[in-house]
Amino acid sequence: MSDIPAADKVYTACVLIIGNEILSGRTQDTNLAYIAQGLAQIGVVLKEARVIPDVCDTIAATVNELRAKYDYVFTTGGIGPTHDDITAECVAKAFGVQNTLHPEAHRILQSVIKPEDLNEARLRMAHTPQGATLIVNVVSRVPGFKMENVYVMAGIPRVMQAMFDAVKPTLKGGPPVLSRTVSCDLPEGIIAKGLGEVQTRYPDLDIGSYPAFRRGGGFHVSLVLRGRDAALLDRAAGEVAAMVKGLGGNPALE
Amino acid sequence: MSDIPAADKVYTACVLIIGNEILSGRTQDTNLAYIAQGLAQIGVVLKEARVIPDVCDTIAATVNELRAKYDYVFTTGGIGPTHDDITAECVAKAFGVQNTLHPEAHRILQSVIKPEDLNEARLRMAHTPQGATLIVNVVSRVPGFKMENVYVMAGIPRVMQAMFDAVKPTLKGGPPVLSRTVSCDLPEGIIAKGLGEVQTRYPDLDIGSYPAFRRGGGFHVSLVLRGRDAALLDRAAGEVAAMVKGLGGNPALE
Repeated sequence: MSDIPAADKVYTACVLIIGNEILSGRTQDTNLAYIAQGLAQIGVVLKEARVIPDVCDTIAATVNELRAKYDYVFTTGGIGPTHDDITAECVAKAFGVQNTLHPEAHRILQSVIKPEDLNEARLRMAHTPQGATLIVNVVSRVPGFKMENVYVMAGIPRVMQAMFDAVKPTLKGGPPVLSRTVSCDLPEGIIAKGLGEVQTRYPDLDIGSYPAFRRGGGFHVSLVLRGRDAALLDRAAGEVAAMVKGLGGNPALE
Repeated sequence: MSDIPAADKVYTACVLIIGNEILSGRTQDTNLAYIAQGLAQIGVVLKEARVIPDVCDTIAATVNELRAKYDYVFTTGGIGPTHDDITAECVAKAFGVQNTLHPEAHRILQSVIKPEDLNEARLRMAHTPQGATLIVNVVSRVPGFKMENVYVMAGIPRVMQAMFDAVKPTLKGGPPVLSRTVSCDLPEGIIAKGLGEVQTRYPDLDIGSYPAFRRGGGFHVSLVLRGRDAALLDRAAGEVAAMVKGLGGNPALE
């Protein structure tokens, strides 16, 4: 998408999903889609997502690669009390600082966990890389944290969503990325040429064609136009619909 | 030198998800979990997954980075007939070869599409990087392809699954990765110490703790042990269960 004046900065982001449970296929990630939708709303361009295992060197190296490359890095997973929750110490390693007890995180834990239950494992959740600021967690209270442009969040979707929602208003972005969807009952092979021509006429929009199986059998195609200019989107969506209709289809603006 | 891999050769893989629709949050990916589970069955270690946009330079550079790093690269998405389906030409670019009409793919298309309907857009689906071999698609016939260690598959889950299922028996792997899950009704903070001790005693196993919200409220924790030695897994799972029980919980082997 290039419909932004050259003088304006485009803010970019990457999502880093940390966890063996995703790479083993045990857990179906849903955090990426949530973050992606939220970033589109505030006009931050999500450029990449990665899934990596609970391996400290990999986490540290990947965090360093990505934080240099993008304006924002959002990590999910690995900030609980068990031995496999190593994200905080690995992010500390990435930044070359100690992973230390964060006084404010400590106070939060003390406010929700009885002193006799605040064992060593739970205290690990109050440790952050030195210099980190906390990310509020209204669901289960145990905070995430932000280290420069790296936002470290939980893996449990409800908790991650609360953390991301807390962070979102603080992010610099741009005009929201809007979309229009034209539902199409013709096969992709029929509309491909005309769709490509619309894309060529609207270089500032991103037009995608997404076929899916209908439950009853056969294909259904969603033609999705994305961009920051509502009027431009409406015009292009109208051209897509007219093109489908001209080929004998029954397009519908979803 | 021998063609026989060392007995302890570990085969590694990466999944490369190509598509703006995933990074926009429009589409919830489910292909990663399917491939991950399939690879675990044949003992191939999935080390990483990436999601990247429909940008040719990014696709080509990422393919080249990953194919050098892992034994197998599985891509999903971008092999249809529309203008945004650019995976084949970008993989060709990565390998420094032409994207040309593949005679066998051409024959397959001719067998399912009437000559008058086999337009330029559809013919694009019969193009592969020079030297590629085809991946059978029993769902919609249009094939994927393999270029050295890069397996290029569709994005539509049903089609991707069919392609991956066709490829799976041809992959070299190792003993399947097995798992045991101990369901735990105690909070992570209570069992963390004991669980870490079991992990220390079983360095050949990967033990993870995965909390989730129950629908009725409160947490539920799944303690998942993964490894290739069934007897070792059973013994370690028994120790985990005994540990949870010793702390007053009611563990259950799922």
